[in-house]
Amino acid sequence: MKLGTFGRKVNLGVIGLGHRGYEQMKLLASMEDVVIKAISDNYPDRVQRALDHLKQVGRPAPFASESADDVLNRKDIEAVVIMTSWETHFPLAIKAIKNGIKPALEVGGSSSVQECWDLVNASETYQVPVMMLENCCYGEEELTLLNMVRQGVFGELVHVRGAYEHDLREEVGKGDIIRHYRQHHFLTRNAELYPTHELGPIARYLDINYGNRMLYLTSMSSKAAGLSAWMKEHRQDKPELANHQVNQGDVVVTQIMCANGETIVLTHDCTLPRPYSRGGRIQGTKGIWMEDNRSIYIDGRSPVNPDHWTHEWEKDTAYMEEYRSDLWKDYLDFGTRGGHGGMDYLVFRAFIEAIQQGTAFPIDVYDTVTWRVITTLSEQSIAMGSLPVAIPDFTNGKWLTRRDEAVGEYKLGR
Amino acid sequence: MKLGTFGRKVNLGVIGLGHRGYEQMKLLASMEDVVIKAISDNYPDRVQRALDHLKQVGRPAPFASESADDVLNRKDIEAVVIMTSWETHFPLAIKAIKNGIKPALEVGGSSSVQECWDLVNASETYQVPVMMLENCCYGEEELTLLNMVRQGVFGELVHVRGAYEHDLREEVGKGDIIRHYRQHHFLTRNAELYPTHELGPIARYLDINYGNRMLYLTSMSSKAAGLSAWMKEHRQDKPELANHQVNQGDVVVTQIMCANGETIVLTHDCTLPRPYSRGGRIQGTKGIWMEDNRSIYIDGRSPVNPDHWTHEWEKDTAYMEEYRSDLWKDYLDFGTRGGHGGMDYLVFRAFIEAIQQGTAFPIDVYDTVTWRVITTLSEQSIAMGSLPVAIPDFTNGKWLTRRDEAVGEYKLGR
Repeated sequence: MKLGTFGRKVNLGVIGLGHRGYEQMKLLASMEDVVIKAISDNYPDRVQRALDHLKQVGRPAPFASESADDVLNRKDIEAVVIMTSWETHFPLAIKAIKNGIKPALEVGGSSSVQECWDLVNASETYQVPVMMLENCCYGEEELTLLNMVRQGVFGELVHVRGAYEHDLREEVGKGDIIRHYRQHHFLTRNAELYPTHELGPIARYLDINYGNRMLYLTSMSSKAAGLSAWMKEHRQDKPELANHQVNQGDVVVTQIMCANGETIVLTHDCTLPRPYSRGGRIQGTKGIWMEDNRSIYIDGRSPVNPDHWTHEWEKDTAYMEEYRSDLWKDYLDFGTRGGHGGMDYLVFRAFIEAIQQGTAFPIDVYDTVTWRVITTLSEQSIAMGSLPVAIPDFTNGKWLTRRDEAVGEYKLGR
Repeated sequence: MKLGTFGRKVNLGVIGLGHRGYEQMKLLASMEDVVIKAISDNYPDRVQRALDHLKQVGRPAPFASESADDVLNRKDIEAVVIMTSWETHFPLAIKAIKNGIKPALEVGGSSSVQECWDLVNASETYQVPVMMLENCCYGEEELTLLNMVRQGVFGELVHVRGAYEHDLREEVGKGDIIRHYRQHHFLTRNAELYPTHELGPIARYLDINYGNRMLYLTSMSSKAAGLSAWMKEHRQDKPELANHQVNQGDVVVTQIMCANGETIVLTHDCTLPRPYSRGGRIQGTKGIWMEDNRSIYIDGRSPVNPDHWTHEWEKDTAYMEEYRSDLWKDYLDFGTRGGHGGMDYLVFRAFIEAIQQGTAFPIDVYDTVTWRVITTLSEQSIAMGSLPVAIPDFTNGKWLTRRDEAVGEYKLGR
């Protein structure tokens, strides 16, 4: 639907109102066709803050609770947005499905392979679709690159990289142990904790679940030096944190082999000082693009300098303009809004409009679990000295011939 | 010894006079204290070209042969520079050792783990030292970075990357099958074929063989699409090449775990279109440097922009100036010469001067095999679906307490 036009009203529940959940709820509350019917969070102060906001913007007061179950048991919502701690996404989504409520999950990893199967099985059994709100799939750059890949700019794809490289030492280290769920993961696990920001877009470049699939991975973790050093320096106010053992290695690198012979490298790099990057790199038989130097080289198109001994990088600016996606052309005309450069808004519109139109979600249950299971499998590989670990085929063979059933401007797969 | 001053004359043999060997022989012939006493190559035209050059620059005509054995059996040389095909370096070096001749090997990989042990055993048994001519260890940038690492600019090192990223499609594909040894490797093997340009410098950053060691690796290879496509397009003159199967994957990524918990990622990326890079990246508890965007971020030193949501890159120019190594300060005053930005000259001087002074080689037999064995081990890992493979301790425990016995300005280890 054209950006800025709205369809029939969709009654939503919103679960999880921490930093991210609160901001996202505000964005939802700004949409004319969304009615927030019920909200919950474990902490009453967060519930109150959300209620205050809705009142302030003139929205009707929703049902409010400290229990997610209370939201999921309501009969007046058809969909729910789950923005709780990573490890609670799957059980909450499965409860929603069983109650006939369509769940949208915020991004994150997985706790076990089994919970991924449980989500697939629940969705298939109850015929309730699931979406993951992987905003980066709707990033301006990512959609431009998807367009370039589909138009063959890189030739046959061979190797793709992505990363979540974000200095979270302060964010993870500053909280107290009880409320900051992310802290538990960093203190206690060692894994590719957060794969989907880069893997979502990469999966589309490589047609994962649509004629291609990820076969196996290996993962290796560096020592954990960055967060301990930071907490030792900054958290003497809380000695149990300052002296806490940190299990999460500073840099975790995961390699993934695909059925069609392409390889993927993912990097999780969140506890050392560094600028933010999603570490993108796309390579094919015709050329290469790299995020960190915003550069590209395409055989036969990039300028050739006869005085230089080999190829030279070209800035990617002209390509980013030339191959901009139709969705982003419209969005720039309309005016971007919401967080993360505007992509948060787009992923919500994809969710809401698919519900309104009764069409398939563009990031479905198979995508959700295929991307998120990497956390668990990388954890297993690291624990076993980087042994290769097989990646389940959650489609049970449907990937061989599957086509994306989503429709309209938010469709991502083929 | 001060650059531009020369010591006693060193009588050298030179084996292998292909493209690289010929250029390097010319560089050796330009040094006042080097006497090229004997040369050989399998191909008489190459021998003749070398003889012609030496005559032209007024050097005495050396003994010349098509057999390397003839060179290694001479009594009038004390050292030999081996610049033949990768797979012949080890057997030739072992023959040299048995004849009391000190061998310098050009860079390359390995064919087996056993040949690495054979070289170590020969060197230990006959008490003849070995050097590898890893020029990148003497690169301006690499020595600057080593200086920064030693001065603690990056804090505690955690993760290091390097690469050999060089579009060799034309170089590998243009030759005929018989004379271009590199072509055999690309057509027939699948491995991290050429690890030492990046791994040599990295090994020094991480004190490998000097209190640290590499424990195990995993390796994954993408499909092989780039070189076949290139040959199909450009080598219709030679159908056996145009239609030849290519085994070497376009992008091979190898992860290495070190005893002290640091991880290394190596990339071999030689058959897709791309600009050249050694893909450097150094990360520690205080900051990060990246080659591809020539940028750095150091906690507490890099500028902080209060309007930006997170850290920002800073160009590395000022650091490269500030931390320039003493050797390169002298070298820039003296004037760089020889190939590859001047580092070829330095690594030869390191070799020649150690012989003159009777001191240890700065890149010794343990370094040589520790770096080169990665080729074979990555090949094994790839062949077995990325299984982790243990890296031998060629020092047999000496790494625990070993110190670099090289002296003077060319010393690299601690």
